[in-house]
Amino acid sequence: MAYRVAVVGATGAVGLEFLRVLERRRFPVASLKLLASARSAGRRLEFAGEEHTVEALGADSFEGAELALFSAGAAVSREFAPVAARAGALVVDNSSAFRMDPLVPLVIPEVNPASARRHQGLIANPNCTTIVSLLAVAPIHRAAGVERFTAASYQAASGAGARAMRELESQVRAWAEGRRLEVEVFPHQIAFNLFPHVDQFAENGYTREELKMLYETRKILNDNEIRVSATCVRVPVLRAHSIALHLETREKVTAARAREILARAPGVLVEDDPAANRYPMPLAAAGSDEVRVGRVREDLSHERGLALFVVGDQLLKGAALNAVQVAELALGLAPAPVCG
Amino acid sequence: MAYRVAVVGATGAVGLEFLRVLERRRFPVASLKLLASARSAGRRLEFAGEEHTVEALGADSFEGAELALFSAGAAVSREFAPVAARAGALVVDNSSAFRMDPLVPLVIPEVNPASARRHQGLIANPNCTTIVSLLAVAPIHRAAGVERFTAASYQAASGAGARAMRELESQVRAWAEGRRLEVEVFPHQIAFNLFPHVDQFAENGYTREELKMLYETRKILNDNEIRVSATCVRVPVLRAHSIALHLETREKVTAARAREILARAPGVLVEDDPAANRYPMPLAAAGSDEVRVGRVREDLSHERGLALFVVGDQLLKGAALNAVQVAELALGLAPAPVCG
Repeated sequence: MAYRVAVVGATGAVGLEFLRVLERRRFPVASLKLLASARSAGRRLEFAGEEHTVEALGADSFEGAELALFSAGAAVSREFAPVAARAGALVVDNSSAFRMDPLVPLVIPEVNPASARRHQGLIANPNCTTIVSLLAVAPIHRAAGVERFTAASYQAASGAGARAMRELESQVRAWAEGRRLEVEVFPHQIAFNLFPHVDQFAENGYTREELKMLYETRKILNDNEIRVSATCVRVPVLRAHSIALHLETREKVTAARAREILARAPGVLVEDDPAANRYPMPLAAAGSDEVRVGRVREDLSHERGLALFVVGDQLLKGAALNAVQVAELALGLAPAPVCG
Repeated sequence: MAYRVAVVGATGAVGLEFLRVLERRRFPVASLKLLASARSAGRRLEFAGEEHTVEALGADSFEGAELALFSAGAAVSREFAPVAARAGALVVDNSSAFRMDPLVPLVIPEVNPASARRHQGLIANPNCTTIVSLLAVAPIHRAAGVERFTAASYQAASGAGARAMRELESQVRAWAEGRRLEVEVFPHQIAFNLFPHVDQFAENGYTREELKMLYETRKILNDNEIRVSATCVRVPVLRAHSIALHLETREKVTAARAREILARAPGVLVEDDPAANRYPMPLAAAGSDEVRVGRVREDLSHERGLALFVVGDQLLKGAALNAVQVAELALGLAPAPVCG
């Protein structure tokens, strides 16, 4: 059994990772259609040793498709994801378009695999910072009940796409060569800088990225009581997101117990040996599937508090890998990950 | 009235800023003695248009000195600060050596100016991340009682000294030129990376930098009940520290009220206009005296919570500027800053 697969946004940072992840996981691809904007049509991309030509996305792009992986922004998903679903494809959408739709499951396979089964042709892939955070928060929530957490993120340029990654690189190059730094993609210079601004601002002063952390967490954990507050910050790092988390649990969890829980959690790598200078770092996490968790501490400021530092590749577990895992789960190609 | 001033660690990142701050504030300098390790002796540094030769620090370096500004690490301060004090100088020490000594005041002029008057020849300058955070926390504490705060920091290379700043720059240059990146000062590559490791690790899994945030805050605010938990992270930024803060107050403070309080707080610049992409950033804060506060939000996860993002130049308000302000206060050259 193999699937006719369409990739929407194939030339983007996440789109290119879709191809690598499908290859690497030997996803059973019967045929592959690469879709992007008219601007990118004609580009040739390699998949499994063969060249494929990128086609312009259109209303008839999904004929015969059985799986459609979308990562081309919310507007494109809003227009074309229903088209692909009506054509009979299972759609896994990496944009924010359908995440909060009550009829659309929002799935992290390690956290809420059962939700994937309730899809009606469309499954949403959560926000990258939320996925990376919840890989660590969910197992502790299951074991001891997380009542509240605060998050401060250190988000890589990749979260804003391939052009944003190139902007960071070209600013650094310009700096090294004594040239003027050009700012086009980001609102401000990102080289040697950072800014507490990811996605647009809402009325209450939070950014939409920060609000996703709250609302998506509640939906994924199926818990409308959990309280979340985040500060999301863009940093001059290329492709892995880091998050400093402060959790408050219903039952006291010692640091040792938290490490035990996390060591058995699927998709998580505990990296917590400060004496050897070992802790999660974005440079080490880039290109790896696991979400790394370290700096596990009992929170000195709260009786039932835990502090953690988590890092995950934004393009992999934060986007392409999670989406492909969701597809594998929904198509019955992989069992639900189980806590060891 | 002018003072015979000695600067210890004159060739370091903070030492050089001492000179610029003394000049810029027209501190009444009768004579200036620049002291450093034997390795740096003989170097010539300019102050107020004149060249001064750096001398090797020794037991007789402080004869006649009336003010000694120290920033050469805790070991040097432990050995020589008492020597300078015994010689009759007022010592303002930027190291961690004496900060928690109950006989030594730990002073931020905008926060606890009265403590400066109780010195016995030695005043300690607080940790940089603590100073920058407390410029924003203290006015809210005065107005509404801060019971707890958590902090996630984004600390610049400057906090690890001039060599660390050069290491970030030379790694970026090597990357741009396709050369191998050298790692000498920091435990890991800092260009395009970050790590949750500032200062040494303690038994409980916190770093000493993170514990300073707790213990120095309690001493400066003269409040042993306040609970603080921090995650301190080094980021590839040159000289300003950023901190994402989540505060819990005894009395509810709205975002509007918090902005009012902060707008009147000395040393603070409220920069909070998200619609115009205005919020504090390290690149903008570098070289400026004020601590910038923005992203002021009522915390969605706590009834009496506030979220803030603060940024301050680590070498200025986080170190040299605060120390010179402390000296001005203790010598009666400046009145205590007053909430407007």
